[in-house]
Amino acid sequence: MEAAESGRPGPAASSSSSSSSSSSSSSSPPAPAPAAAAAAAEGEKTGPAAAAMRRSERDGGADGRNVGFVLVHAGAGYHSESKAKEYKQVCKKACQKAIEKLQTGALAVDVVAAALIELEDSPFTNAGMGSNLNLSGDIECDASTMDGKSLNFGAVGALRGIKNPILVANKLLSEAQKGKLSAGRIPPCFLVGEGAHKWAVDHGIVPCPPDIMTTKFSLSAFRKNRRKLELAEKVETEMIQTKKRREVTENTNVTASLDTVGAVVVDHEGNVAAAVSSGGLAMKHPGRVGQAAVYGCGCWAENAGGHNVYSTAVSTSGSPFLACEDSVLGGVIVLRCCRCSMDSESALNAPALLVEFLWSHTTESMCVGYMSTQDGKAKTHISRLPPGAVAGQSLAIEGGVCRLRTSVN
Amino acid sequence: MEAAESGRPGPAASSSSSSSSSSSSSSSPPAPAPAAAAAAAEGEKTGPAAAAMRRSERDGGADGRNVGFVLVHAGAGYHSESKAKEYKQVCKKACQKAIEKLQTGALAVDVVAAALIELEDSPFTNAGMGSNLNLSGDIECDASTMDGKSLNFGAVGALRGIKNPILVANKLLSEAQKGKLSAGRIPPCFLVGEGAHKWAVDHGIVPCPPDIMTTKFSLSAFRKNRRKLELAEKVETEMIQTKKRREVTENTNVTASLDTVGAVVVDHEGNVAAAVSSGGLAMKHPGRVGQAAVYGCGCWAENAGGHNVYSTAVSTSGSPFLACEDSVLGGVIVLRCCRCSMDSESALNAPALLVEFLWSHTTESMCVGYMSTQDGKAKTHISRLPPGAVAGQSLAIEGGVCRLRTSVN
Repeated sequence: MEAAESGRPGPAASSSSSSSSSSSSSSSPPAPAPAAAAAAAEGEKTGPAAAAMRRSERDGGADGRNVGFVLVHAGAGYHSESKAKEYKQVCKKACQKAIEKLQTGALAVDVVAAALIELEDSPFTNAGMGSNLNLSGDIECDASTMDGKSLNFGAVGALRGIKNPILVANKLLSEAQKGKLSAGRIPPCFLVGEGAHKWAVDHGIVPCPPDIMTTKFSLSAFRKNRRKLELAEKVETEMIQTKKRREVTENTNVTASLDTVGAVVVDHEGNVAAAVSSGGLAMKHPGRVGQAAVYGCGCWAENAGGHNVYSTAVSTSGSPFLACEDSVLGGVIVLRCCRCSMDSESALNAPALLVEFLWSHTTESMCVGYMSTQDGKAKTHISRLPPGAVAGQSLAIEGGVCRLRTSVN
Repeated sequence: MEAAESGRPGPAASSSSSSSSSSSSSSSPPAPAPAAAAAAAEGEKTGPAAAAMRRSERDGGADGRNVGFVLVHAGAGYHSESKAKEYKQVCKKACQKAIEKLQTGALAVDVVAAALIELEDSPFTNAGMGSNLNLSGDIECDASTMDGKSLNFGAVGALRGIKNPILVANKLLSEAQKGKLSAGRIPPCFLVGEGAHKWAVDHGIVPCPPDIMTTKFSLSAFRKNRRKLELAEKVETEMIQTKKRREVTENTNVTASLDTVGAVVVDHEGNVAAAVSSGGLAMKHPGRVGQAAVYGCGCWAENAGGHNVYSTAVSTSGSPFLACEDSVLGGVIVLRCCRCSMDSESALNAPALLVEFLWSHTTESMCVGYMSTQDGKAKTHISRLPPGAVAGQSLAIEGGVCRLRTSVN
């Protein structure tokens, strides 16, 4: 028999533990956390609400060989109520895919890629299929992944004609782990543009015709944006004459989907991994690479070691490159875990993994999903800033905690 | 009259101040610092040797308007005695160019670009002209720059057919500082491949035919490397049959020039800036982007502010991506400065900038140059690991200090 705790988001503004509990394993989304916004982001303000939930050993062996946990997000931006269902569905599928992989004993770095593929394949996210089009009407994607065990990193930038950019990033990472190439050459971990496409195809990844990756929605948004751009440039030309360059009104701004996607995973060995994938800014210049492809920016994963008892994985949305912006719009998902005992009161003292997780965003909303191998269904949730809070100036933080029995101590 | 101190490298393994002094302003290279290598790199071990040097106000106005300091490097790798002269010459020219710009009142971010152009134009460095060729026989360059005042960053990766990649990075940075593009679009700060080339040309940077950028030396190295690669792959094919894949001997390894170049600058306002440029690894896969283009990896610059009284600028050579390597080969130049008084014993207490600088490398050698607006000539130096020290396992650190009179307090 296996005992487990599975958390659900609780009040985040307080650092004391919440007593809210959930006694079922259903995927009903948690209620929006009250007071989840703070005017300033100073450190971790989450108070994960641990909800006790006894469950049978349906998922994962009794020996705990195949336990694990996944947290995904389908974008920090604005999610209308009408589209909420689709976003949640995407997150649910990504979680389920990850859990299936974990149950087969897959390691975190491959599990996180499996989750990302589902997120990229959704036409609703700005990653892979249906990504924002650039100024030339093309899709150019960024993606990266990091393995907390080896600290290896794989990334692609401005990649065209590949349906799942994360597959290429994952392949770059795994190829690099094999060691040097012939003649002592150091294998690449970050490839861009044409070279990245060629490398992907040479490594067995099937190319995808650009018109298949373009959705009806992304094409329609592109056409609308192009008209706005033409109008704005006309207005600007007139403004230059009156020396008011670049002071255009918000109404003429391009419609941008900010739905970068990401996932963080811990596997049965306690290894963590993180991944991120993005179609980048709408109407961006061809060749632009965003934070999703950049080492130390888009994602990070690092197993416990040395003085650090925590393994940590992070995936971000929104760019540190936007330093010129008055407000930074973005979101982040974080997972950290450490070894613990399954039940401190039990004499058996079975080894376990304590998994703490959170999501935070300065955007209007963020859609997340999470699931452990001990859950029957994924939990999905659209986190929103509280009423009256201003996007870019307020911050929402929510999180949870779960305990996974392992065979490894 | 203007008083100034200009440092020269002294013993670095000790943290006490050295009493060695230089009474002339000649560019004679300092003697190699003894015991400059430490087996482990734990924090800053430099003990800058401040050498008192009274000088007239030949450079820079008496009001200190045009003071400043530059430190450059022409690569951390192996510099044979026979080529030492050329490398020093390149560093000298880069320093002089930077000082000329500083004297006209240019800001650090533009001065650092001027220094880099000289370094890129040298056929001896692995940056711009004469860069390593990739697997396809093409030159693809990475470069980035950061402005410590605004924290803006500009970078290009896998850029072909532009003689001075740093010019594009600098232009990306300066364009981004103008604010948003038409229709509220966020300007790019990191462009790669074809898109980067097109943006450069659209912004007035003249393209350069690839065969002009290829030097006799880089082409000869490429041909030699291609033969080694063919041989290695033949050997490997045989090894695969005996299950010894990728265990090739050092003799068959490609010949790689590691001479990434970089510079750090402080200007008369006390602003710092950093820049880096590299042709990347020899025989790299097309589309590979290295640390020179990556935010937070290739360079960093940050003015004093908040609780930090120091402005800091750093430029690196050698990649954090080489995590799979047993030893990390690379180098770094660092500058930090703070406000101080020109002479603590003087009643006048004229405002000044205290500039501390150092270079450090795990490679066999590193060629550096430095100069202040108060110097008549640049100082150049090839730093070497002490006899017996093993590259990749030992570390050399050397540095200096100088004091610049300013009008700004």
